[in-house]
Amino acid sequence: MQKIDLIIKNGLLLTFDKEPKISSIAINDGKIIEIGKSEHLEKKYIPTKTLDAEGKIVMPGFVNTHTHAGMIYFKGMADDLPLMDWLSNHIWPAEGHFLSADFVRDAALHGCAEMIKNGITTFNDMYFFGDEVAKSAQKVGIRAVLGEVVLDFSVANCHNADAILAYSAMMHSKYKEDELIDIAVAAHAIYTCSKETLIKSAELAQKLGMILHIHLSETRQEVKDCLTKFGMRPVEYLDSLGFFQSPVLAAHAIWLDENEENILAKKNASIAINTSSNLKLASGFDSFATYLEKGINLSLGTDGVASNNNLSMLEEISLTSKLQKALNDDPTILPAHQMVEIATLGGAKALGKDKEIGSIQIGKKADLITIDITNLEAQPMYNPFSHLVYTLTSESIKDVIVNGKIVMQDRKLINVDESELIDKAKFYREKIIAFRNGKD
Amino acid sequence: MQKIDLIIKNGLLLTFDKEPKISSIAINDGKIIEIGKSEHLEKKYIPTKTLDAEGKIVMPGFVNTHTHAGMIYFKGMADDLPLMDWLSNHIWPAEGHFLSADFVRDAALHGCAEMIKNGITTFNDMYFFGDEVAKSAQKVGIRAVLGEVVLDFSVANCHNADAILAYSAMMHSKYKEDELIDIAVAAHAIYTCSKETLIKSAELAQKLGMILHIHLSETRQEVKDCLTKFGMRPVEYLDSLGFFQSPVLAAHAIWLDENEENILAKKNASIAINTSSNLKLASGFDSFATYLEKGINLSLGTDGVASNNNLSMLEEISLTSKLQKALNDDPTILPAHQMVEIATLGGAKALGKDKEIGSIQIGKKADLITIDITNLEAQPMYNPFSHLVYTLTSESIKDVIVNGKIVMQDRKLINVDESELIDKAKFYREKIIAFRNGKD
Repeated sequence: MQKIDLIIKNGLLLTFDKEPKISSIAINDGKIIEIGKSEHLEKKYIPTKTLDAEGKIVMPGFVNTHTHAGMIYFKGMADDLPLMDWLSNHIWPAEGHFLSADFVRDAALHGCAEMIKNGITTFNDMYFFGDEVAKSAQKVGIRAVLGEVVLDFSVANCHNADAILAYSAMMHSKYKEDELIDIAVAAHAIYTCSKETLIKSAELAQKLGMILHIHLSETRQEVKDCLTKFGMRPVEYLDSLGFFQSPVLAAHAIWLDENEENILAKKNASIAINTSSNLKLASGFDSFATYLEKGINLSLGTDGVASNNNLSMLEEISLTSKLQKALNDDPTILPAHQMVEIATLGGAKALGKDKEIGSIQIGKKADLITIDITNLEAQPMYNPFSHLVYTLTSESIKDVIVNGKIVMQDRKLINVDESELIDKAKFYREKIIAFRNGKD
Repeated sequence: MQKIDLIIKNGLLLTFDKEPKISSIAINDGKIIEIGKSEHLEKKYIPTKTLDAEGKIVMPGFVNTHTHAGMIYFKGMADDLPLMDWLSNHIWPAEGHFLSADFVRDAALHGCAEMIKNGITTFNDMYFFGDEVAKSAQKVGIRAVLGEVVLDFSVANCHNADAILAYSAMMHSKYKEDELIDIAVAAHAIYTCSKETLIKSAELAQKLGMILHIHLSETRQEVKDCLTKFGMRPVEYLDSLGFFQSPVLAAHAIWLDENEENILAKKNASIAINTSSNLKLASGFDSFATYLEKGINLSLGTDGVASNNNLSMLEEISLTSKLQKALNDDPTILPAHQMVEIATLGGAKALGKDKEIGSIQIGKKADLITIDITNLEAQPMYNPFSHLVYTLTSESIKDVIVNGKIVMQDRKLINVDESELIDKAKFYREKIIAFRNGKD
């Protein structure tokens, strides 16, 4: 008998090619090594730990492809405001005042913890002080792709775009062998990066084999301004710069025309859908029917909590599926199983990691979550995919395993002390309120 | 010192006219008798029970103005289907086979229990076997307005519309003095009730002082057919029949033109918004900006779980607020505090009960809920209304008080055994699956 790290026993396994089935998973060295009946696995392996998943769905962890973990303390700080008022008078002043290595590390620690609570096992971040975000992700035990936000002006930790790109290259080298951390190039947007900066970003991504993360076609205004300035729409403009030579992950992307969709499809770019944020900020929406037809890879992001205001992927799949049905006058579009695949395997593809994560498969990393289906509100259950998309909330997510390690068990985080995080959040809240009241 | 039933101590009280404030509530004989500091109340009253609400929001319970509690066992039975396929091949056959007094009583018991878990203290129901629904509501301890669905064909418990209206009159008389149960006239829709039936429904409502509950302008097809058949749009058609002489509660109402909005405003009709259901069934959506301008009273419904698939009012307020912002290209529309008011006081108004319920006010019935704001995902909190709409889910709802009585404490239902409800749901699930597989 072989000694292994973990057996997850008797869960209702969700895979994308077979019917859901009660089964057990043997895990060793971070990877899924066998799937089968528990009697069979228990005859073959001696696990250090066993996780009982009876009465629970077992599925791949969610892959959140667009967020800003370091913004956690701005959650619900200002709502129901026009975008420029919200940014200029609330978010930017607060960031200008508070951003520091300590602040971002603390905020990201809370952000990573909250993502685990929402069943997210991998997130793709765009923010400042990436090295601090990396430390927090490692501490919580969550997988992360980190992009230092490239801007043409001086930011908290770097003085210009070149310095930010140098920081990104340093991060890439520093975390090359890391089990949990990958680095991306994160150009903020076409309206905050010059042509030269966008080209340099793309070149760096290509040189070091990183993905290119960018806010793209988020608002009507962005498209309008691009047409005025460059005589092209945003995707066409980026294409003219050779931006799509590396794999691009376009966050938002709700104001595309047909030619832009064709470019994204041809260049194998992925989209990070952020429905909550787009609706809440009144940025808008688009039908994804043509995106699906053209085969553009779709994934799902929560965006930052300042514009969401939570990190629930279950809310995003529900909201996105329902909105798309009404927009397309078609209740069959984005059915439940497809939404779950977008939020897991779609995200893995978007991050170039679908050989490693995103589904329950032998040889893949064990990034898994369990979801309780025994309570009153979950009864009756006919189809677990339907329940995930239309019925359940994140509180039903009980256990989270990343890279073969349990990081949350029965909703208790294993690697961080929640009460410390809560105290820290209250501490920063007081400081933020004082600053906003002009008392700091 | 006066003996009273209950003190709710040190919660963060949400009222609609003052800033949220830590305060305590004295309750006796089903009603709020005083609001003040706990030291003050404890000097004055000896409560039989004290509920500690420290670290919790205390707010009026949600008023769910459109649902079908008896459909609970069809939750997630069939999704992602075109409306007529869903109805004709899934819902109607199952209803045809299963509807009975026992089935509806059992289902409604589960439905009422689930509503309490979602912080709903009053619901407005439209279904069959209302007397059974009443028994279940009384058992759970939830306030209900019950309408026997008026149709022009034979249904499970009545043979024609006249019989259903007679049943409604009987119910009105039977529950006239009941503390929790009110009766409405519930005409199903303009496409399932003849002109005569609609007129008789309106006359009965007027005669006995009941509200008139109807599905109205839910789909484009309904409007199209009405125009073809009557040369008028649905609201105009109902108005031509004198339907609006009683207070009308129109469920859905997303395909109104300006004249119809004017009629509803002039006639003081209310709308039950059902955003989840409208999106999921691809029925559509409408901007509510003009509804708000014209002063139409808006309230919120979950619809039945067969088309939602849950009974969360927190999801409805979040979804509705966010969708409306994007539809109107205006992030300031339906701000958080207004959405919370719509889901509580708006519902009370829609049911003609705003003198009794819907807000925290001395003399009103004590229909209250507490919501935990101490966990990680709730940190930091700047504005409790924002958290209710954009951040929290129903699992944060801890205690529910209806008519001065605690019906859920720390998420445990007081008057029903949850494990029995779960077993019953599993029992019916097996029967429903067997029927759908042709084995019953």
